Formats: sequence, structure tokens, C-alpha cells
Amino acid sequence: MNSFVWQARVYWEDTDAGGVVYYANYLRFLERARTEWLRAKGWSQSLIQQESGLVFAVTSVTAQYRRAARLDDLLFIHCELVIDGGATMLFRQRIHRNAEDGELVLEAEVRVACVAADTFRPRRLPDALRQEFA
Amino acid sequence: MNSFVWQARVYWEDTDAGGVVYYANYLRFLERARTEWLRAKGWSQSLIQQESGLVFAVTSVTAQYRRAARLDDLLFIHCELVIDGGATMLFRQRIHRNAEDGELVLEAEVRVACVAADTFRPRRLPDALRQEFA
Amino acid sequence: MNSFVWQARVYWEDTDAGGVVYYANYLRFLERARTEWLRAKGWSQSLIQQESGLVFAVTSVTAQYRRAARLDDLLFIHCELVIDGGATMLFRQRIHRNAEDGELVLEAEVRVACVAADTFRPRRLPDALRQEFA
Amino acid sequence: MNSFVWQARVYWEDTDAGGVVYYANYLRFLERARTEWLRAKGWSQSLIQQESGLVFAVTSVTAQYRRAARLDDLLFIHCELVIDGGATMLFRQRIHRNAEDGELVLEAEVRVACVAADTFRPRRLPDALRQEFA
Repeated sequence: MNSFVWQARVYWEDTDAGGVVYYANYLRFLERARTEWLRAKGWSQSLIQQESGLVFAVTSVTAQYRRAARLDDLLFIHCELVIDGGATMLFRQRIHRNAEDGELVLEAEVRVACVAADTFRPRRLPDALRQEFA
Repeated sequence: MNSFVWQARVYWEDTDAGGVVYYANYLRFLERARTEWLRAKGWSQSLIQQESGLVFAVTSVTAQYRRAARLDDLLFIHCELVIDGGATMLFRQRIHRNAEDGELVLEAEVRVACVAADTFRPRRLPDALRQEFA
Repeated sequence: MNSFVWQARVYWEDTDAGGVVYYANYLRFLERARTEWLRAKGWSQSLIQQESGLVFAVTSVTAQYRRAARLDDLLFIHCELVIDGGATMLFRQRIHRNAEDGELVLEAEVRVACVAADTFRPRRLPDALRQEFA
Repeated sequence: MNSFVWQARVYWEDTDAGGVVYYANYLRFLERARTEWLRAKGWSQSLIQQESGLVFAVTSVTAQYRRAARLDDLLFIHCELVIDGGATMLFRQRIHRNAEDGELVLEAEVRVACVAADTFRPRRLPDALRQEFA
């Protein structure tokens, strides 16, 4: 089961003077969902870094902004792993407002590479992690 | 002349515990360049909002992360208007490190719509602004 | 009962290249707890702004940084209203790590004024809100 | 000469839905000025970290918010080293709007400790750096 939903509230810190969530900050919400998806499988990124010297680096983002989210909105952030290519993972993500299937706020595809923490060179995902994803 | 370069220094605020610029924060750099491109033409967004009730809202972003930028790097952020479609503008942007044509850090395409500040409904760009872009 | 605890996880977005939470970002955690303290009393700030044209503006912050929080830490953010002076409120706040009474990360005092959303001039707190606090 | 002024423009990223700079983000401006003050003396923090394993950690902040800064404001951020106590430095900082001695936006005192990058234990400032400050 590689689909997952995480919730986040919109606070002042997330908004801008247009009265809506600042466009870059949706990427923070997307990453919280990816991090919690991994944590739900029993993996913390700080442990992965300490034990295997690996970190995850985003290599591309495609995002369509559908509706503006606003202060106090409760966001439901979907995270689905669609391709697992050894050293890279492709996530399909969506953000809905006030319910899992509420108004669509944002759709995105995020490609993440597994890299060595010191050199940022690509590395294979740890086997234990790949088995989780299978 | 719709090409433009703006500089920004990488500070602690821009980085994350991976030792590099946090992936969402590149979008802040991209927007500074779009804002300064507009300012170089004599337009401030706060004035546009006050005088015509219009704001610019990003409707899509595509970004490829090529190299990680780090603390103290000086970034050169390119901004080129490639399509001007009445109510939407498409910007092609690149970030280079330490020189205008230095190491490529990020490539992006950002689509921006002109919308009413209160309703976020699409509006035509003000004529005076369109003439600037022509 | 004007004491309250809110939890927040430390994500990549909160950290900097020193490997710890960036010093300004603790103020975001402090505000989430003040916002949720208010919400727990049945008040949302977006509703207060819409209905009475009032917003809360921070007028002073004093913060002592005791321990650095790190990626994946679960923070417990305490929020206590210690003075309610008509137009201003003084909050005493603390952040602990991994438990309500875990290692002390930060202590702060935050003074917040009730102001008109348009002019930022001081206004009395709405009576209904003052009665909640009493 | 330990007084210094640095400029920063207010962008969308710095503001919140109240239409003003988000209260935590002034601390980012304060730090840019401290960083550039150090750079003006010929020191980059990334070099200091690489060469001597030292980083600067904020241990306390006191800030009074006087006027709200807004989108497109040009901020003048003053930075003065007032005490240099071996392992800690006390900075007195002010932010003015649109001129070095323009409207006062914020006053702050920021205490910074020199710590080992790995353990965050206090360390004496490097001698070469102390001589700069003398």
C-alpha cells in the first residue's frame, strides 16, 4: 500500500500578503507527507542518514495550482509512490481542502533521488527500504 | 528586452540540514527575479494591487534541480518572458552559481496568471503593462 | 484554564545547514501553539478578522535558546496567557523535546496586541474573547 | 568600526495574510545583516566552519516590533557588535524603512555563541576573528 494521506493546518507562516498560501510553501506540505509516509513504514530520514549516509534529494517538481488555500484551512496531502527506479522514486501528490476528497488545491509530481549525504552522488536505495516499497 | 538577471546570496535561512538550499526555497529566488524584472520596468506589485486590484498568481511550476546550492553561494537568477497570453505569462527561468553563466543549479518554467485580488478570478493584464512586455 | 500544549514535528523545512532548527523558525512553532490555543477555545483568527476586522500583531518577543532541536524531533510547545491587558496579551511559552516535560529547547515571552486589520491601530479585544480568557 | 548597515527588499515570501512581514521573518533579515557584517570583514561562515569546525548559534533574542513592514519596502538593517565576551557576542540591531534613518520598524538584541559544529559546545572565537573585532 503505497498511497498515504497526511494532514496539515495552514498557519500565518504559510500565507503571504495576497491572503493565500505562498506558492513555494505548498512544496513544504508535499514534503511533510512524503516524510510521514516513510515514517509510517517505520523509517526516519535522520536514522537513514546516520546509519547509511544517504539522504533523499528532489530532482524535479511539476506542480499545478488549482485553488488557493487560505489561513485556517485543513489540508489533506496525498502521497503515492508510482515508480521506484532503484536510485529514484517518483511520487504523485495531491492536496485537497478540508477533506480527503475535498476541493482540489494542488497536483504535483515529485522525483526524488537517493544520494550520498557527503557527495550528493546517486546511490541505490537500501535493500530493506526497497523491500518495503515492493 | 524581456531577459533579466537578478542576484541573491544563500543565507542560513535558505538551507536545510542536508547542508544545501531547501528544495522549496529555490522558488523564492525565482520569484524575487520575476519581481525585480517587473520593478526594472517601473512596476511595483504593491502599486498594481492598490491601483487596479490585480495580483499575479502562479498556476504551474516545472523545475529541474541540477546542482545543489550551498551557504554563501551567490546565485544568478535568470528570468525570461516567453509567452504573454493576455491573462497569463510564461516565464523561463534558470539559476546559475557564482556567475551569470556559472554552474547550472536549477531550470524552471513558471506560469503566472493575472487575477483579481479579491476573487482570484482571471483578469486581463493592464494595457500599460502589456505594452511594456511587447 | 489558560495553559495549553501543542505538538509539532521538525521537518527539513525547519532546519538549516547547521543541522538544527533555524533560529527564526522556533517563532513559527510558538505561533502555531498560540493559534491552536485560541482554536481550542472555539476561535479561528480568520473568522475574527472577517467578523470584527481585528488581527493579532506581535509587539515584542524575548526568547532564550536552551538546546538545539533537530530533524524528526517531536516538539511540545507550551502556551500560557499570563497577562490580559485589554488590548494586549502576554504569553509565556516553552518548547520541550519529545515529551511535555522533556528536555527544554526554548523559553519565550511573546506580547501580542489586538489591532485593526486595515490600520494596525490598537483595539480592545472583543468582549466575547475577553470572557473566554477570564 | 563595528557598526554596519545592510539592505533587503521585502518580497511576497516575507509577508503573511495580514499584509505585513511575518513576525518570525524579521529574524531572517537580522541574520543577513550579521552575516554580511562578517563578510565585509573578510570572513565567510562556511569557510570558518570548514577550517575551524566552528559555527555561530543564537542563544537569545529580544525584539520590539515598532512598525509593520510591507511588500516592496526597502529595509535598512543595522548591526552593531556591543559586547564581545570571548565565546559570545552581543549584537544591537535595528531595522529602518526606506532609509538608513527612516521609520523605525524593529529593534533587537541578539546574543550569539561560538560553538563546535558537531557538539554545539561553546568554543572561544578564533583569535584572528577576535582581533578583527577589537
